[in-house]
Amino acid sequence: MVTVSKDHPRYKSLVLRDKLVDGCKRGITSVHGLIAHGRGEAFDYLIGEKSTTNALDATEVTSAYILTAQRPILSVNGNVAALVPAELVELSEITEAPLEINLYHRSRQRSEKIEQHLRDFGARRILTGRDYVQLPGIASERAKVDQKGIFLSDVVFVPLEDGDRCEALKKSGKMVLAVDLNPLSRTALAASVTVVDELARTMGNLIEFTRRMQHAGDKEELEVLKSKFDNAQNLKTSYSIILSRLQNLSESKGV
Amino acid sequence: MVTVSKDHPRYKSLVLRDKLVDGCKRGITSVHGLIAHGRGEAFDYLIGEKSTTNALDATEVTSAYILTAQRPILSVNGNVAALVPAELVELSEITEAPLEINLYHRSRQRSEKIEQHLRDFGARRILTGRDYVQLPGIASERAKVDQKGIFLSDVVFVPLEDGDRCEALKKSGKMVLAVDLNPLSRTALAASVTVVDELARTMGNLIEFTRRMQHAGDKEELEVLKSKFDNAQNLKTSYSIILSRLQNLSESKGV
Repeated sequence: MVTVSKDHPRYKSLVLRDKLVDGCKRGITSVHGLIAHGRGEAFDYLIGEKSTTNALDATEVTSAYILTAQRPILSVNGNVAALVPAELVELSEITEAPLEINLYHRSRQRSEKIEQHLRDFGARRILTGRDYVQLPGIASERAKVDQKGIFLSDVVFVPLEDGDRCEALKKSGKMVLAVDLNPLSRTALAASVTVVDELARTMGNLIEFTRRMQHAGDKEELEVLKSKFDNAQNLKTSYSIILSRLQNLSESKGV
Repeated sequence: MVTVSKDHPRYKSLVLRDKLVDGCKRGITSVHGLIAHGRGEAFDYLIGEKSTTNALDATEVTSAYILTAQRPILSVNGNVAALVPAELVELSEITEAPLEINLYHRSRQRSEKIEQHLRDFGARRILTGRDYVQLPGIASERAKVDQKGIFLSDVVFVPLEDGDRCEALKKSGKMVLAVDLNPLSRTALAASVTVVDELARTMGNLIEFTRRMQHAGDKEELEVLKSKFDNAQNLKTSYSIILSRLQNLSESKGV
């Protein structure tokens, strides 16, 4: 892995880029995933490369859904496995939710590499998707989900998911929790809760919220958080954040 | 190289992506370069995938600076070499400005491959950066510039440059001419002139302007163009272009 100098002002972003390039070299991430990551970086500039209050609220609601689910699943694709393996395993341990390897460009070899990669980070609950069933309403290869995992789940956490698949999951009646820097994406529009934030920042926040709320005596609080959340409003606020940032910039109020 | 169907609505963009993937396979472009390209593509959507009047103005000023420089240099990195080799060589021939191979992720092997690639396109003036000196104020590997090239130059054309290096060039007293689709990037903010446009479009415009202005009898016109240009205003206009495009889209006035 290339070493990024710590004094670079965009150190964190460059470290993530290195992780992804490394994942690509090791056969975990697809080349398409690299371009998709670049697109995400562009939206991160527009929101200001930080977790907005709006994103923190959506992350807290995500945490509430995972904690109150009957059968929660944490979905893992190639980019996610390369970027935040330790965080995924930590969240899986805290919540006892299994990790399901869920690839857009499916390949047995890549799936096995990701499985080993997650085990190297201490993962104990992994579903490989090799025993699969097909979700309805989506082309065959991309319809496959693990028959003991996403298929039976009520709540699915799908960071960096494809729009088609996100829609198919939603239509099959599941609560879909997405992380996507692009608030205009089909994934962002289809999900039940969309965290418009960079994944590594989101995972840090999600782990913190989950640890805190897990031990709260009153589960009512979690239900209130869930019922008060409106994803359409959340996305509108995300557009406003970008617009007002551009407005300020075009009027020289500073970045 | 993958063949893109000419009737695809985004034909030009897909051809560029193919060139870059091909450059990556041939060891000219770094894998990091693919991510950076994806980021650029996202910003190109936001500005509308065409050269704005604002970008054309900045391109004309870029041309004026190159034509009036004492020692102009055209900097070439892996993405630039893969995307616009013929155009770079043409600009170098018109202006007699050397091409300097200037890599963020430096490697002797990649530098040699780029040198050969440029020669295949007819390049005659190439500086390899292998006899280098260090620019002050930046971590060592990335500080290296050719001692007969950028080090002695007064005007540097740096398409798709890293922000840190762009700042270091500016601090060393050079006139820095950048091309960057992201008007929020540190490169865009640090440069003397920032063309907020896609590189292949920019190169076409730059060659046209340079050919036309080269033969203009009155050099005064070039000085007027330079003195009237304000990069802060140029960037503000770029933010306004994205802003009003998003506003129109959100009010459904069409793209």
